[in-house]
Amino acid sequence: MNGALSLLQTLVNGGIDTCFTNPGTSEMHFVAAVDQVPQLRTILCLFEGVCTGAADGYARMTGNPAATLLHLGPGLGNGFANLHNARRAHSPLVNIVGDHATYHLQYDAPLTSDIVSVAKPVSAWIRSCRTAADVPVAAAAAIVAARRTPGHIATLILPGDCAWNESAAPATQFSVPAPPTVDEAAIQRTAALLRNGKQSVFCVGGPAATEAGMRLAARICQTTGARLVAQRASARMKLGANTPIVERVPYAVTQALKLLENAEQMILVGAPEPVAFFAYPNMPSRMSPPDALLHPFATAEQDVIGALDALAEEVGAGHEVGPVHERVCPDLPTGELTSEKIWQALARLLPEESVIADESITASWGSAKWMGGAHAHDWLPVMGGSIGQGIPVATGAAVACPGRKVVNTQADGSAMYTLQGLWTQAREELDVVTILFSNRAYAILQGELQRVGADEQSRKAQEMLDLSNPTIQWTALARGMGVEASRATTAEELSDQLAAALHNRGPHLIEAVL
Amino acid sequence: MNGALSLLQTLVNGGIDTCFTNPGTSEMHFVAAVDQVPQLRTILCLFEGVCTGAADGYARMTGNPAATLLHLGPGLGNGFANLHNARRAHSPLVNIVGDHATYHLQYDAPLTSDIVSVAKPVSAWIRSCRTAADVPVAAAAAIVAARRTPGHIATLILPGDCAWNESAAPATQFSVPAPPTVDEAAIQRTAALLRNGKQSVFCVGGPAATEAGMRLAARICQTTGARLVAQRASARMKLGANTPIVERVPYAVTQALKLLENAEQMILVGAPEPVAFFAYPNMPSRMSPPDALLHPFATAEQDVIGALDALAEEVGAGHEVGPVHERVCPDLPTGELTSEKIWQALARLLPEESVIADESITASWGSAKWMGGAHAHDWLPVMGGSIGQGIPVATGAAVACPGRKVVNTQADGSAMYTLQGLWTQAREELDVVTILFSNRAYAILQGELQRVGADEQSRKAQEMLDLSNPTIQWTALARGMGVEASRATTAEELSDQLAAALHNRGPHLIEAVL
Repeated sequence: MNGALSLLQTLVNGGIDTCFTNPGTSEMHFVAAVDQVPQLRTILCLFEGVCTGAADGYARMTGNPAATLLHLGPGLGNGFANLHNARRAHSPLVNIVGDHATYHLQYDAPLTSDIVSVAKPVSAWIRSCRTAADVPVAAAAAIVAARRTPGHIATLILPGDCAWNESAAPATQFSVPAPPTVDEAAIQRTAALLRNGKQSVFCVGGPAATEAGMRLAARICQTTGARLVAQRASARMKLGANTPIVERVPYAVTQALKLLENAEQMILVGAPEPVAFFAYPNMPSRMSPPDALLHPFATAEQDVIGALDALAEEVGAGHEVGPVHERVCPDLPTGELTSEKIWQALARLLPEESVIADESITASWGSAKWMGGAHAHDWLPVMGGSIGQGIPVATGAAVACPGRKVVNTQADGSAMYTLQGLWTQAREELDVVTILFSNRAYAILQGELQRVGADEQSRKAQEMLDLSNPTIQWTALARGMGVEASRATTAEELSDQLAAALHNRGPHLIEAVL
Repeated sequence: MNGALSLLQTLVNGGIDTCFTNPGTSEMHFVAAVDQVPQLRTILCLFEGVCTGAADGYARMTGNPAATLLHLGPGLGNGFANLHNARRAHSPLVNIVGDHATYHLQYDAPLTSDIVSVAKPVSAWIRSCRTAADVPVAAAAAIVAARRTPGHIATLILPGDCAWNESAAPATQFSVPAPPTVDEAAIQRTAALLRNGKQSVFCVGGPAATEAGMRLAARICQTTGARLVAQRASARMKLGANTPIVERVPYAVTQALKLLENAEQMILVGAPEPVAFFAYPNMPSRMSPPDALLHPFATAEQDVIGALDALAEEVGAGHEVGPVHERVCPDLPTGELTSEKIWQALARLLPEESVIADESITASWGSAKWMGGAHAHDWLPVMGGSIGQGIPVATGAAVACPGRKVVNTQADGSAMYTLQGLWTQAREELDVVTILFSNRAYAILQGELQRVGADEQSRKAQEMLDLSNPTIQWTALARGMGVEASRATTAEELSDQLAAALHNRGPHLIEAVL
């Protein structure tokens, strides 16, 4: 068999059953081989940022890597932003990047570029195959690298001749090392800290902020009196009814500083200490008090759940997780449409076991008030701060969870970066409801601009943050890509349309005009 | 003044009057300063690939760099593919990439990444400012680097504190070195080759394929009997009536080999020898005969026009350029709509002094038959092979040439990568007519798939190249972004709509259903 077929079979042997593809000529042998590997589902995306964002969403919901198929350096470049987000989410992911045949590279044909240099900032593992015989071994190593705790991005560069030449048999061995455990001494030290009478913040993020991690952390805090705080965002959080009530570090620096101002010691679990999203003149970068003790208990690379389990035992934690959110079923909102009312309607209507891919940006700040009372749901926020992931992540989550409703709460400015994902939702008949918060602005930047002292005379500056000229017609864009769409200008319309969209199956976009 | 304002003023002092922007928080001081620098036009794009592609189009039409404003590593990543194309076009361009404040980088906030690594494959010059005082000096160096012959990409990384802290006065000195000249001995050697009686191919590309270069080359060939051949593509070609008739190296390898099979010596002017766009099993990478003499006469980095001028004098070239295209005004096509008939209609209707941004891919192969007879026009093809540049390049060309009609001949699959550029065309009321060749397929890949031996049983493979499920409604997408649109299903409809769109001003998209 050729290298392409051996690669595909190795992917399947290594547990990868989904590939988000945007192929070109250099990947044509890969494309030609897919029909011989029925276990691999290939999903076409019309832009590479959709492939990489979808693979991120898929990985967050399954814990398994998906593959992407990308076309040389520029294809990887187009996928870079959502790979950056996926890296920050610790999502396992295997990129297959086609390249020119090894002997052709020297001629510097138009598409030649330094693929490794583009891959490096987002990849924990990179290898360029030298021969077709290399391919299965390299692919197996990529899968192992991707699966290492807590999940990594592996980028396998596949020159054309390595795909088309005769290769070796597909790999069948994939020894993923277990994550290092947190040793007994560290568990005892941490337990001692929690008992020393000081104001402790038990700060969870990443793998510690998953449903299992959060319940363990809540039990520990319930017993020790430590304050449970979650990082601003983690890749997959369980929110809504019956989940522990947890404070999250706010995005705004002053609010974050306020939240943590009394902390004497910060126990860090699954993520480093909270820092400002951006620096501002005369504001600190670190959100914890300067004299607080920072105590990294378990990093994301370690067995975080095991460590929390051991710590819970060490401190003699009971089964109580403390206060949890109760199911609150608010009335459907009426009157003028606001972003808060959208959350209100969603809190009432969201089906059980839904998944929310959230990229509502400024609008998300009002979500917590309502969504704690919604049915329990998985919440997938933007992890790397690069906008344009909401539609792709929702796409990947829907591929991963065919039985569950996926809701994409989506800001309009961010949606424009990767709107092509709607087409894939239509093609694959994915069960995604997109709620488009249409405020016709980069609203978060309008606040930032005010903060740096620009005034109303700043016409050119204001224009750079204004999306109202011309107004984007989101229903037209969605329908143009085969997705049903509707437009809500009042809270009543929003409620009606949302109820219908959540009841039906298949993709639907609601433009909520704010 | 702060670093941001000193930067803006330095850009203007260095002759940069246009900036294609997609800002974020780390660029907010830049944004806040733009109203103090009225000479700089800022143009908002809703995706960074539009910024970089527009800057490419702008540079090709003016010879001057535009600036882009991009948001950290992921913003640069989103702009990477069209920077790759711009690099291959030798377009001068200055990227301003915002970054975290220098002291904030150590905290690895979510948007932190290795910006230099992403910039490297596309940038001839990269610098990250260390202090605000650095900024004007660094910006001046970036402009000089961008302007060096034949045009380069300079990437200036601007940490937040370098933008907001007190800076030095704007730079006013910009000494761009003149390109090295081709020496007298090389001119004489080349002249001697052209007289030695062997079959010479005079192969022009890049700066030698501009209007001035092509006329000089045609005069030299007319006198010496060498065969004039142009590279497959050059950044800006003058085509149509009264331009010399020149053979171009075809994309298809077998055709390219056939064109050059009798060459005994290849005189290379402005570009390296022609090579295959992609490698294929059992096909050569080089398009010239293995035993042909390769003679690089002038590289793109040298004074190519000066060298051609000197060579013309050395060989005693007359003023005759040989056969030129005559203006041919074909009948308007009728009946079933085909891509060839679109070119036929365009050849008849194209106004004088138009600019064509071409990304019609497979459809472009039929253009030469008709477009030679059109009014003379500038032709801007895809240089780096990365699709998704047509809409942005047309956007930038229209910004550069407000008095000229810009026509974007655009394949549908490629258009999807950067469709957001239509919104900028609407906002800036740019005079661009997009002819969307809607064949609902990655047609070029369908041919490649056949070539690698996939058959009609290859359902999954075929699906990966098929855009018909669901069918994209391009009129909806265009209107959704504020661009007038129409749909043509017959040659008559196409002709009518094209005539009207070319007559009116402002952006219009015609979906030509093939």
